[in-house]
Amino acid sequence: MYESQRLSRQIDFLIEIDKAKRILRQSLIADGSRRENDAEHSWHLALMAAVLCEYAGEPVDLLRVIKMLLVHDLVEIDAGDTFAYDDAGYETKLARERAAAERIFGLLPPDQAGEYRALWEEFEACETPEARFAAALDRLQPILLNHRTRGATWKKHGVTKERVLERNQGIAKGSAALWRLARALIEDAAARGYLDEDSRP
Amino acid sequence: MYESQRLSRQIDFLIEIDKAKRILRQSLIADGSRRENDAEHSWHLALMAAVLCEYAGEPVDLLRVIKMLLVHDLVEIDAGDTFAYDDAGYETKLARERAAAERIFGLLPPDQAGEYRALWEEFEACETPEARFAAALDRLQPILLNHRTRGATWKKHGVTKERVLERNQGIAKGSAALWRLARALIEDAAARGYLDEDSRP
Repeated sequence: MYESQRLSRQIDFLIEIDKAKRILRQSLIADGSRRENDAEHSWHLALMAAVLCEYAGEPVDLLRVIKMLLVHDLVEIDAGDTFAYDDAGYETKLARERAAAERIFGLLPPDQAGEYRALWEEFEACETPEARFAAALDRLQPILLNHRTRGATWKKHGVTKERVLERNQGIAKGSAALWRLARALIEDAAARGYLDEDSRP
Repeated sequence: MYESQRLSRQIDFLIEIDKAKRILRQSLIADGSRRENDAEHSWHLALMAAVLCEYAGEPVDLLRVIKMLLVHDLVEIDAGDTFAYDDAGYETKLARERAAAERIFGLLPPDQAGEYRALWEEFEACETPEARFAAALDRLQPILLNHRTRGATWKKHGVTKERVLERNQGIAKGSAALWRLARALIEDAAARGYLDEDSRP
């Protein structure tokens, strides 16, 4: 059915990644009706990158940022979603995700497998302007959704304002303006009672 | 909460488009478990554009193709999804979608409203290399999903092989190679009984 092995591998990959539509995240979609999946989350981030790229802390190649965001969660097809406030899950996350990247990007022809695997590694390492901006959006989006859904996920997991501020401070490395926005959203959420203040002494 | 009216409008837009996650298409996702929504469809197309851009019939600016695909279905937030084989729906589609584009892209600051509105108009007019390639992917993806789900949507709506070939021949304008792939998938689907042959005399 395929006129080349290359095209066959590309289509195999594009069918395999359809599974991202079934990986549920902790965040609810903005109307609060259900949990968001990885595919729609990645679409939302890609459009956020396009609309908000003027706020990147350093000049970024927008196409690279978007490609990175489109594939950044594909490893969860095998490794599952790890909630941002699940410390135990984070300990084994990297090993599980490395194996997943090997298998999933490995479906592509070698040159593209290398390209997308490298983009995923770059996102994870978070050491380039593109990766820092992509990571900032990946942190900001759940804050927007949580604010919109009156802190649904924060409340469910008993996460405090201090924890949210601490867990998301990396946004500042990708964009000072978006970190100011994130802090304003978090403070407003706390003021409205969507998010508890830390009760530890 | 926002440090500028510009940022406030951008975030309003980015929250509004979350509604695309609730617009259901006719296609099922690849495992056949449920209908696909516009947000995950657009994500899938954006990644298809990145992986398959070597097959574009003319040189394309990949970032423009991807931006176009990320926003091409936003008008359905107001106008709803029109099934590709619904001729009556197609008669009113353009007017409904124009009004939707006016409202939804109009949430953005004027410069970006103009940019994304123009990208959507360009996609609809299908007269540039980028729009032709984007449209080809938008046609190919449901064929891939229908083939994968044993013709679920085709069978449900009683669409014949001849109708599918006719309705999708525009793929050839965006990519000769992807049109050959689409035809091979359609012939294979018919041979497997996923799609009926035309019974008209």
